[in-house]
Amino acid sequence: MSLLNYFKRTKPNTARLAKERLQILVAHERSARNQPSYLPELQKELMAVIKKYVQVNQDDISINYESDDDQETLELNIVLPEHD
Amino acid sequence: MSLLNYFKRTKPNTARLAKERLQILVAHERSARNQPSYLPELQKELMAVIKKYVQVNQDDISINYESDDDQETLELNIVLPEHD
Repeated sequence: MSLLNYFKRTKPNTARLAKERLQILVAHERSARNQPSYLPELQKELMAVIKKYVQVNQDDISINYESDDDQETLELNIVLPEHD
Repeated sequence: MSLLNYFKRTKPNTARLAKERLQILVAHERSARNQPSYLPELQKELMAVIKKYVQVNQDDISINYESDDDQETLELNIVLPEHD
């Protein structure tokens, strides 16, 4: 199953009533341990790019970062402001 | 179930033998139809940011873009070159 199918499968039926959302997932599957992580810095640059395209309030961004030996994952969830 | 769990659940057992991979997913859940999509342009800028952090060969990037009425999804799969 592709990740695209996963997004579709889990989309709630109430989506049309909800605010617009933007979700970004970055997963890095590492071959070597103990190599420095660039995801925190990457996160800042991704946010700078996103802000060029959509209005984002800092309060509407939730960030989740997880790391283990061979995988690190960065998750950005952004609720976009309503527009007319 | 969070998306983070999804990543972990689907990680193959052969991951440690594989090359490093970077995967980026951008999902935009829209409240209004017919609004212009910014994901193709966003994709170019994301790639420019990624290339600042990791060596990426164009041949090692696969891109998948899907769109329907209220959801568009951009998927970037990048196989990173081996390093010593």
